Amino acid sequence: MSEDRQESASRQQINSELLLAALYSNKLEEFRAEFLDLHPYDQAEFFSKLVDEDRAKIYNFLSPEEMADLFENLEADEENFKDVLAQMNPNYAADMLSNMYADDAVDVLNELDKDQVASYLTIMNEEAAKEIKDLLHYEEYTAGSIMTTEFIAISANQTVRSAMYILKKEAPRAETIYYIFVVDEEKRLAGVISLRDLIVADDETMIGEVMNDRVVSVSVGEDQEEVARMMRDYNFLALPVVDFQNHLLGIITVDDIMDVMEEEASDDYSKLAGIADLDTIDRNPFTAAKKRLPWLIILLFLGMFSASLIGRFEETLDKVAILAIFIPLIAGMAGNTGTQALAVAVRGIATGDLEKENKWSIILREAGTGLITGAVCGILVAAVVYFWKGEFFLGLLVGISIFITLIIATLAGSLVPLLMHRLKVDPAVASGPFITTINDIISILIYFGMAKIFMRFLI
Amino acid sequence: MSEDRQESASRQQINSELLLAALYSNKLEEFRAEFLDLHPYDQAEFFSKLVDEDRAKIYNFLSPEEMADLFENLEADEENFKDVLAQMNPNYAADMLSNMYADDAVDVLNELDKDQVASYLTIMNEEAAKEIKDLLHYEEYTAGSIMTTEFIAISANQTVRSAMYILKKEAPRAETIYYIFVVDEEKRLAGVISLRDLIVADDETMIGEVMNDRVVSVSVGEDQEEVARMMRDYNFLALPVVDFQNHLLGIITVDDIMDVMEEEASDDYSKLAGIADLDTIDRNPFTAAKKRLPWLIILLFLGMFSASLIGRFEETLDKVAILAIFIPLIAGMAGNTGTQALAVAVRGIATGDLEKENKWSIILREAGTGLITGAVCGILVAAVVYFWKGEFFLGLLVGISIFITLIIATLAGSLVPLLMHRLKVDPAVASGPFITTINDIISILIYFGMAKIFMRFLI
Repeated sequence: MSEDRQESASRQQINSELLLAALYSNKLEEFRAEFLDLHPYDQAEFFSKLVDEDRAKIYNFLSPEEMADLFENLEADEENFKDVLAQMNPNYAADMLSNMYADDAVDVLNELDKDQVASYLTIMNEEAAKEIKDLLHYEEYTAGSIMTTEFIAISANQTVRSAMYILKKEAPRAETIYYIFVVDEEKRLAGVISLRDLIVADDETMIGEVMNDRVVSVSVGEDQEEVARMMRDYNFLALPVVDFQNHLLGIITVDDIMDVMEEEASDDYSKLAGIADLDTIDRNPFTAAKKRLPWLIILLFLGMFSASLIGRFEETLDKVAILAIFIPLIAGMAGNTGTQALAVAVRGIATGDLEKENKWSIILREAGTGLITGAVCGILVAAVVYFWKGEFFLGLLVGISIFITLIIATLAGSLVPLLMHRLKVDPAVASGPFITTINDIISILIYFGMAKIFMRFLI
Repeated sequence: MSEDRQESASRQQINSELLLAALYSNKLEEFRAEFLDLHPYDQAEFFSKLVDEDRAKIYNFLSPEEMADLFENLEADEENFKDVLAQMNPNYAADMLSNMYADDAVDVLNELDKDQVASYLTIMNEEAAKEIKDLLHYEEYTAGSIMTTEFIAISANQTVRSAMYILKKEAPRAETIYYIFVVDEEKRLAGVISLRDLIVADDETMIGEVMNDRVVSVSVGEDQEEVARMMRDYNFLALPVVDFQNHLLGIITVDDIMDVMEEEASDDYSKLAGIADLDTIDRNPFTAAKKRLPWLIILLFLGMFSASLIGRFEETLDKVAILAIFIPLIAGMAGNTGTQALAVAVRGIATGDLEKENKWSIILREAGTGLITGAVCGILVAAVVYFWKGEFFLGLLVGISIFITLIIATLAGSLVPLLMHRLKVDPAVASGPFITTINDIISILIYFGMAKIFMRFLI
């Protein structure tokens, strides 16, 4: 760990001692000179570590505008926005919210109770309140929910010079000035021009001549995961969001998309592990246990069910106790191969690669993969059991069971998420432990079913 | 799947019929007019679907500069760069490589054999060849390996006007013009100014006055994952890369970081599932099986080992066959809880959250979590067995075994990755199936160990 700490020395250095000393001794000017020189992310990091009394001082030391920059960088998973806002004077909080980018303000307000939101909106700057209200309507995880309305839009019938003039004027409010969007009289998206192209273009050229009119956009109800894919495919810094009539509603910037990517990756990962929400580090074992127990208890009951299945073969087991030896092996292999197939399918759906493919070719391929891995593992295990225990039929039984189990478990691992995707259920919900336990049960049925057939050779 | 296809209609529309018709009938101008109007990503998508003969035509229709734009957007996991380059005339290929951004050209060259690289470098544009040679040295997964040398650097002792002049001149070559880096006479990084600030600044102001001199940078050997974290934390569009004496060597842009994030997420995910490399979709079952078999075979032998462990308890099993019923349940619970703890630890290391914490507090927390989940599941299972089978001691045995197993499995799941991180091994290598199988073995030892103690109550 020391390695990382040393390397990240290239991050900005926060002079915490100096800042704290200035804070405690009420040296306003000294504190502000040092603090405002920091990147807002580092300001937020410093703020996050303070106790409530010290935070109260910060509110006195910083204007609502300055606090807005800091607040945009506070992490939702480390701070309870509700509590932090409650510490502030309501007018100060409302002023701060007005000064935040609308999409960030919406993220904060989404954490509050409805009546709190309403009361902040009434005392806020009217224009900002309107922008925020518009954004609050959109459903979570859609393009609308992560877009901002602070973009620069111009008309095609103006010169590059006049566009630059607008741009300089609107720069302080806009979330990005590196893409300028061109709209027609009805506010429909007509084109886009990057600041890069604007700068190298001749001052008197008309925007219509230099803009790109084949503009890529997303519809407001689009899933945020698809937005992230498009941003990554096209290497955009911002994407315009439109309604079904192509009216420009907002833009999504790349920094928000990085957060989406992190969130989605974390989400898929936690579902594969069968755990509720990995985003936050739990400071105490009770909250950690609370997140893990739901899955564990579901799996416990599924496990009891598989135990009762084996119970039906008690007679078989009584006769050939040695059969029990291979139960964990077969169940384990079923779980492993199912998890692999599941991961391939979930990932393929997430990256969109599987969309391009015919579903029968996917099924055939997975069946083929199961056949090959099943054959290799089945032969291997049969040989090992034969040479180790000297029992030919036992080896054959375990080998054939592994062979059949691997084919079915591979198919189950890939078909379940594909089916869920079809039914518009998030495929990652078919999480790792769930598939594993289902496959455990299937494998036990196969193993004991085969054992009954082989019985007379085994005793 | 239809849902996604429809929604993504907002992506650029590729008029494939028109393009193919123009290609087949050798209508050069018609093809170029339509094709060059596409975003390079879509050009690459179209190109990817062509057979070799059609690709040969494309090389005739496009200049090496135009081909370079397309090639930068080809996906390494879908195309074999070696084969594609081999189809081109070597001079055309070298010209194209010269025209690519250096970091993208390096990505392509890294896929080739050493002597091929050398021969391309000799026939390439000299300046481009030098830039590429410099970049080829850096180790994979470091900041150096993903940076580009095409940045804009200016001096603090010039006016905003002259900086804008340099910027317009260098814009066609630079990978980004939205950040301009300020260096001193020895090329040491002294500051940064965004184009946004440059544009709103007065023309006669000196750069030294408006630049930000607390510039965040990464060292050239930094892990790309940490670079991605910094980019995300600070919302930068580009990060400067420096050597240990703070000389500016290159920059990393946000589009490359999105690829890194995707790659790292995919990597962690595939390791949790115990599968070699999820990045590519395998078109046939043999390549798919080849990726899955290594882990499956390792796990098979680990499983055989656990089978031999149970074998040692054959006598116990002979006496109390009913014990076998609960083997999959106990092994399964050990695997599940271990995977959960593993996922929390790996994710905590990846996001850097665990770095901030004392290792003893992590261990204590995980032990506590195991204790709580173990107690809950243990009591539950004991109760169910008692009411279902009416066997008090069997229930007690299974309950106590689950209790102890969950504590140890939780600790193992979190300690193994932490230990690996300490030893500077990628913690995700302690993949899901590995931890699961280790925990299977531990759980069986605990279960049969306890069974021996309980034996006289069970028969």
